[in-house]
Amino acid sequence: MSSITTTGLVSRAARNCLSRGRPGNGTFTGLQKRFVSLQTLDANQKGRERIVVLGSGWAGYSIARDLDQKKYQVVVVSPRSYFVFTPLLASTAVGTLEFRTALEPIRSRRSKVEFFQAWADDVDFGKKTLTIEESVADPWQGRSLVNDQQADDQNDQRTKERKVEVKKGELFDVKWDKLVIAVGCYNQTFNTKGVKENALFLKDVGDARKIRNRLLSCFETAALPTTSDEMRKMLLNFAIVGGGPTGIEFSAEMHDLITEDMKRIYPDLIKYAKITVYDVAPTVLSMFDEKLSKYAMNHFKRSGIDIKTSHHVEELRLGAPAAFQQQGSGAIGADHTCYTIKLKEEGEIGVGMCVWSTGLMTNPFVQKALGDKVKRDPKTGGIFTSERLQVKKGESDEVVPDVYGIGDCAVMEGTAYPATAQVASQEANWLAKRFNKGDIEQTKFTYKDLGIMAYVGDWNAIVQSSGTGVSGRVAWFIWRGAYLAKSVSWRNRILIPIYWLLNWLFGRDVSRF
Amino acid sequence: MSSITTTGLVSRAARNCLSRGRPGNGTFTGLQKRFVSLQTLDANQKGRERIVVLGSGWAGYSIARDLDQKKYQVVVVSPRSYFVFTPLLASTAVGTLEFRTALEPIRSRRSKVEFFQAWADDVDFGKKTLTIEESVADPWQGRSLVNDQQADDQNDQRTKERKVEVKKGELFDVKWDKLVIAVGCYNQTFNTKGVKENALFLKDVGDARKIRNRLLSCFETAALPTTSDEMRKMLLNFAIVGGGPTGIEFSAEMHDLITEDMKRIYPDLIKYAKITVYDVAPTVLSMFDEKLSKYAMNHFKRSGIDIKTSHHVEELRLGAPAAFQQQGSGAIGADHTCYTIKLKEEGEIGVGMCVWSTGLMTNPFVQKALGDKVKRDPKTGGIFTSERLQVKKGESDEVVPDVYGIGDCAVMEGTAYPATAQVASQEANWLAKRFNKGDIEQTKFTYKDLGIMAYVGDWNAIVQSSGTGVSGRVAWFIWRGAYLAKSVSWRNRILIPIYWLLNWLFGRDVSRF
Repeated sequence: MSSITTTGLVSRAARNCLSRGRPGNGTFTGLQKRFVSLQTLDANQKGRERIVVLGSGWAGYSIARDLDQKKYQVVVVSPRSYFVFTPLLASTAVGTLEFRTALEPIRSRRSKVEFFQAWADDVDFGKKTLTIEESVADPWQGRSLVNDQQADDQNDQRTKERKVEVKKGELFDVKWDKLVIAVGCYNQTFNTKGVKENALFLKDVGDARKIRNRLLSCFETAALPTTSDEMRKMLLNFAIVGGGPTGIEFSAEMHDLITEDMKRIYPDLIKYAKITVYDVAPTVLSMFDEKLSKYAMNHFKRSGIDIKTSHHVEELRLGAPAAFQQQGSGAIGADHTCYTIKLKEEGEIGVGMCVWSTGLMTNPFVQKALGDKVKRDPKTGGIFTSERLQVKKGESDEVVPDVYGIGDCAVMEGTAYPATAQVASQEANWLAKRFNKGDIEQTKFTYKDLGIMAYVGDWNAIVQSSGTGVSGRVAWFIWRGAYLAKSVSWRNRILIPIYWLLNWLFGRDVSRF
Repeated sequence: MSSITTTGLVSRAARNCLSRGRPGNGTFTGLQKRFVSLQTLDANQKGRERIVVLGSGWAGYSIARDLDQKKYQVVVVSPRSYFVFTPLLASTAVGTLEFRTALEPIRSRRSKVEFFQAWADDVDFGKKTLTIEESVADPWQGRSLVNDQQADDQNDQRTKERKVEVKKGELFDVKWDKLVIAVGCYNQTFNTKGVKENALFLKDVGDARKIRNRLLSCFETAALPTTSDEMRKMLLNFAIVGGGPTGIEFSAEMHDLITEDMKRIYPDLIKYAKITVYDVAPTVLSMFDEKLSKYAMNHFKRSGIDIKTSHHVEELRLGAPAAFQQQGSGAIGADHTCYTIKLKEEGEIGVGMCVWSTGLMTNPFVQKALGDKVKRDPKTGGIFTSERLQVKKGESDEVVPDVYGIGDCAVMEGTAYPATAQVASQEANWLAKRFNKGDIEQTKFTYKDLGIMAYVGDWNAIVQSSGTGVSGRVAWFIWRGAYLAKSVSWRNRILIPIYWLLNWLFGRDVSRF
């Protein structure tokens, strides 16, 4: 239950040598750990054990909320100040819901959780100490985390950006009695050229905001008399890469926005609008039964959304396709306001926006800070855990005492649970209950599949649960009801149906700011 | 009723020579007017007269909404895609209301108004033609417009930014039958050093968003163990410059946020929080009767908000005051996360944020594009209009045919109506009615003062109308009721009280993104 938290002056460059096994590049020499005292944190501990939770996603936020604060001092460390109810992000990206209805702030009047807005930087299992770096002013706040799979420190986009923009991040140490690692994953781009820089992702609220602004500005630009018809067609051609539930639901929501609102607001432009979903696999929504995924595909076909399976994206770049540029500025303008997506099967296509949703990759924290201190899944790169969600030591079946791994960043060895919100929150709930009761040695975690669902547009959905499949309007009612019931706070449980109603009555708000 | 709208190729540099009376600097040679056809606009005109409205503030938005669309084709030209209900901006800046409750999109399902998101660039009264420049991708979108009073083209901040960031702006011409100039004003900084760059303003929703994020990040930064007590005190020291209704209401809203929410969310930090209002004048709220303004000042005193009248700001810069910096990085950190405000009376003071609200200055469009084509008020720089709101010709009492000026950018010669939302919307309503009835020659505009009001915090307000003054809780009811009744759309009339209720029940949302 100790929590001594003063640390000596260690330059970050020097520390990088230690923790990342390579010489520091000198960029960080200006940064240094200070003599800091976590007096307030220690004063508030009041004899309780301290549980440090890394991350504020489905796993981290759920366990922090469920832990008994009489028994434990809960300290959340996360670079973002809120939890995102991810299934509603697609709705917020098109304005069906307001952004904050998908958010729950970690700090609130009722919450007694301690919070540091910071990145976990390093971890010392022996000393039970975590080194964290403040990130209040991080320019990437609210945005999806993307990285190149083979990237090293020098090519790590976040590190590069922060070197330039956030020289201020300062380091400090926090001691734990128990540590819960729930840092999640980054977005997977398969190193496709230009994707990291030019695609829009859909994992955080800053992404949803960017998508909403871009979507609306594509229409507004297309409405200008200076925009050629060729450019209009490209600006209003929207590409979604990835045929999983996120990509499909976003396509469906965008389709609704276009048919319900844009059609009335920009009647002259609607003939140019087009949505295409690309996937490398031969089918989309492969986690659903064939009947349901076929229903979804047929529904999309009727709605005019193209699904192009077995398609490979080779590049995404800013600017019109080469073929159009050669026509000179008279044709489509010197303004490179559209993007070009290059497909192995079809060549270059001009698009207004490309939303990328193709899966996950290992969080660099897991790869670098944990490295070989823990046993990792050779396939996914995730942290292997025991049946009690304890993190396993590198190259062994022993567990690291008092260190747990939950959510997308962890894999219970011997299982193949999907990387979903459902698994993450069940793990979090189970672990919180064990901690609260103190009975972790007597039980094991098992995952109960409660079903999957996806919205497919026009007030239709597909729902699959314990072998049964439902599609259409009834499924849509289940879909909306489930999301509403699962909403975390009463504020959002009240606001969400109000926004559904108001946007149905008055249309979605198309103000951009 | 003509509306030929194709224009030849004229380089912008060349055009600048003509309209701005100086040689083009060559920066814009890449920009050129194109052969554009406004076919869609012309096709939709259907024999109606075309009224072009410049601006989407209180004057521009109101007249566009009130005009009879059977008689007129209404074309709004504005760099922003929405109207801002400015009295609620202060509430949105602290999270009492969600940003969009203070917005009305110009385009909506119900609106038949034509809209171009663009800046007015030049005007030809003889040819009844307006040259406009698209601004869909303008990086200053949603932000207050600020300029230095004596700035020339070279020092014009907007122009400079756009030269770098928006090379894409393209020009096109629109013909009008009637033109309504309602471009409003810029923020006045009196050329105070560093204010343009470092202060936050409160005239547009982008400003409100910036203030909310900055305010919350000041608290979050202060909560970090790496932040010294000295820096905490500076970060949570908030300065408001300008003791008019906007500055006072924002201070009151911020006070509510701190006492109602921050006190519970950051209990250990609340001792550092401080709000100070500075004004050069010897009193604040000078437009109110002495009794009411004294009530407000006493109320502020009890709430712990300092009002410092007869104070002069000399500079605002990023970083801590010199006195603190000399103590070295060990004391307050190399991180210059606070600002320094320099006062003639008190020297340098560290603040977390400075909100600037000291009044208005002439819009550069009025100064440059209209220049001496119109008669202008030597005192305010505004466009002189007749009693029928017709724009007067330069150096004469003749009016420019079919050109009208309303709102903050215009001054009815011989009157001294204040530059308020009330005057602007009354002018707009009156002019729309005249156009709809076709009786402008038989009547004259007069302003009816319906009263003024201001929120002073803790559910108290002051209201002054036709000689009567009300203060306290009753005034607060009137204040809220009036804003609710004046809200433009049903959507916002429903959402505003819901947010009032939810934030009272559950507290304001402190998520930052």
